[in-house]
Amino acid sequence: MIIIGERINGMFVDIREAIQAKDPKPIQEWAVKQEEAGAHILDINTGASVMKDEQPAVMEWLVKLAQEVSKLPVAIDSTNPIAIEAGLKAARGKAMINSTTAEQAKMDLYMPMAAKYNAQIIGLAMNEKGVPKTADDRAALAMELVVNADMNGIPMQDLFIDPLALPCNVAQEHAPEVLAALRQIKMLASPAPMTTLGLSNVSQRCTNRPLINRTFLVMCMACGLDSAIVDANDNDLVDAAAAANVLLNKDIYCDSYLKTFRQR
Amino acid sequence: MIIIGERINGMFVDIREAIQAKDPKPIQEWAVKQEEAGAHILDINTGASVMKDEQPAVMEWLVKLAQEVSKLPVAIDSTNPIAIEAGLKAARGKAMINSTTAEQAKMDLYMPMAAKYNAQIIGLAMNEKGVPKTADDRAALAMELVVNADMNGIPMQDLFIDPLALPCNVAQEHAPEVLAALRQIKMLASPAPMTTLGLSNVSQRCTNRPLINRTFLVMCMACGLDSAIVDANDNDLVDAAAAANVLLNKDIYCDSYLKTFRQR
Repeated sequence: MIIIGERINGMFVDIREAIQAKDPKPIQEWAVKQEEAGAHILDINTGASVMKDEQPAVMEWLVKLAQEVSKLPVAIDSTNPIAIEAGLKAARGKAMINSTTAEQAKMDLYMPMAAKYNAQIIGLAMNEKGVPKTADDRAALAMELVVNADMNGIPMQDLFIDPLALPCNVAQEHAPEVLAALRQIKMLASPAPMTTLGLSNVSQRCTNRPLINRTFLVMCMACGLDSAIVDANDNDLVDAAAAANVLLNKDIYCDSYLKTFRQR
Repeated sequence: MIIIGERINGMFVDIREAIQAKDPKPIQEWAVKQEEAGAHILDINTGASVMKDEQPAVMEWLVKLAQEVSKLPVAIDSTNPIAIEAGLKAARGKAMINSTTAEQAKMDLYMPMAAKYNAQIIGLAMNEKGVPKTADDRAALAMELVVNADMNGIPMQDLFIDPLALPCNVAQEHAPEVLAALRQIKMLASPAPMTTLGLSNVSQRCTNRPLINRTFLVMCMACGLDSAIVDANDNDLVDAAAAANVLLNKDIYCDSYLKTFRQR
């Protein structure tokens, strides 16, 4: 299970304020805190409050700050392709693009970019029509992502398909479709593409959000989820992921499996 | 998700002592406590300390005590067929036999008994050779249980197949096989047989047992688990089951879904 830490994102007040004040401290603190908590990749997002023409420079600044204090790779998270490329140029090690959709124009933009920078790429199972209702339709869009990645020479282990979870209080029928979609996605190619999930969306405006998040995370892991964008500092969530990795026989059981998971 | 409460079992010291002292109080307290915590069925087991010829009378006594104070149905849990039948005779409402294996002699004994008493029956996916190593071999034994139930006129909604979890610290490779077996069992017939699991075995002698139990429970639910024999008074476990039921779209989301799950 690959944990992508969500916290360096301008949607959080402390990060937004740090960006405005050009204060590196909160950025670097979260980089270290997430790595210590068990994150394997740091997601970096300027947030929507940064003006579009400033986003590339801010992204570069954030990436460099994070990697000054953490050895982790970064996921460059933006809707602005110029900011994405600025992040990729600034990144040390193998970076990740977060994200393309299955819209042809976006795949034509981001897949060659992933190939050029030897980056991993998250592909969202949605297109111009939005998020599909069924597992089958999600898998069909996933197949388009697989084909386009392949045409650009991107190996399946670098393509992370997100079947897209919706809030279970208003779109409850989507959650089991996500589980079924994960199983289908893992059978689309051999070797299979990787899978990922923006987890917290499933519990938007629900009660007991952490419970829903960690429960859905391990249910998804039972269906083939390889990674997720999560609050890496939610200890109960990371514990659940560690236990699930043991139960999937992916990590060898030892009495200190919770600690071992965080140290990988 | 059907929660079968495991607590009225002579393997627990307080129940063993209550049986020896003929003290109804601990039995009835646990019946009420488990029902309040969210159990849907009460498992009743005399434990191995009761002599074989006394087991039928003790089973009858336990069943009647439990159902004096609880409206829940009971699962008659014994390796002694005479004790099983005594429990079935004493039980009010639809009872459950816990359990037969897929050994032909045992199926020939217990399947007609289930039919005679219109009882549900748990079938363990094991035979003379023990617990199979793979999901496929578990499913093959499950198919024998399906066929034998069908030959005895037992409908699939009354057959609960347990793919058998082993301790993940010594038999770790079994856990993912159990997940795969659950998916296969749900495809053996239409309508599908029900599934169940003696959950706590997966975490025997492991650290963080409750974490492993609740994590494996919801992973199994994602793969088709319909019921489990568990500690119904483990609140975190029942919370996880409630959340998973919402995420499987089996219970309609409401802000009080944890309370609602316990009140069904």
